[in-house]
Amino acid sequence: MRVLAARPLTREAFAPYGEVIAKAGAEHFDINDGMATRYHDLAPVEAAKEQGRPLINIFEGRPWALPLTIRMLERHNLGSQAFFPLRDCRWLVVVAPAGDFDPAGIEAFVADGAQGVNYRPGTWHHPLVALDGTTDFLVVDRGGPAVDCDEAHLAEDELVRVEA
Amino acid sequence: MRVLAARPLTREAFAPYGEVIAKAGAEHFDINDGMATRYHDLAPVEAAKEQGRPLINIFEGRPWALPLTIRMLERHNLGSQAFFPLRDCRWLVVVAPAGDFDPAGIEAFVADGAQGVNYRPGTWHHPLVALDGTTDFLVVDRGGPAVDCDEAHLAEDELVRVEA
Repeated sequence: MRVLAARPLTREAFAPYGEVIAKAGAEHFDINDGMATRYHDLAPVEAAKEQGRPLINIFEGRPWALPLTIRMLERHNLGSQAFFPLRDCRWLVVVAPAGDFDPAGIEAFVADGAQGVNYRPGTWHHPLVALDGTTDFLVVDRGGPAVDCDEAHLAEDELVRVEA
Repeated sequence: MRVLAARPLTREAFAPYGEVIAKAGAEHFDINDGMATRYHDLAPVEAAKEQGRPLINIFEGRPWALPLTIRMLERHNLGSQAFFPLRDCRWLVVVAPAGDFDPAGIEAFVADGAQGVNYRPGTWHHPLVALDGTTDFLVVDRGGPAVDCDEAHLAEDELVRVEA
């Protein structure tokens, strides 16, 4: 089984898959007479295709154990999907490039509690993986009449073990 | 000066102004083979008018002292604006009904760290008020070519003092 060491999440490494939502390194400016700082436009929400509309949700994610064997990734072609942890908790981001699914392209990142991600439409990604206990995430994604979830299941000889 | 006691934030009391974003009392179902629970569609994002698009931002809010004298509310006519605290912190929500601004209509609510709000387009609201120290909030609002912020300033004899 291929063993994959999860790397720290950075904007540069995640750029092929979407955006890292974080204050560090982001454009910002003061508002409200200096009582707040706006870290502006950290991620676009894509939700309009095929009568879609953006939704705000909370996902309560139960913790996964490491090492984690990756057996399935999913993608949403019609909309982006953003996750941000609501407490200071590490979590795991496992992705593969959009297009035809290739298990050899799987990458894994460890996010910290000050980092969210926004998956671009079509990015293959693992379901939510909290690491340090049950954690709520704010999730911004697409609602609409069409079902928009493809799953890619890995064969036994394609499985990937992620260590962090 | 009128003195206003801030009430605990509830869905029912906030309904004229928008949505409370919280797990308590919300529709939910398990996903990801039981590893997560989705509290679904807690608030709509309205951002499409006049070439608008939804944005995800982080606001770093500095704390205000109580009692707070309300001198100004603002509104966004073209889009909703959602706030969710990224740590367990109380914060203050001060609103007035949409339409012609009426200082007599101002209401105040204390939100806890498990509650966000989504201001409906046109709802008058005070700028972000963190109470328990500097706190980051995830903010989902509208970007677009038009400036979309009206301010209503209270005259000296209209000022409201909020206590919590």
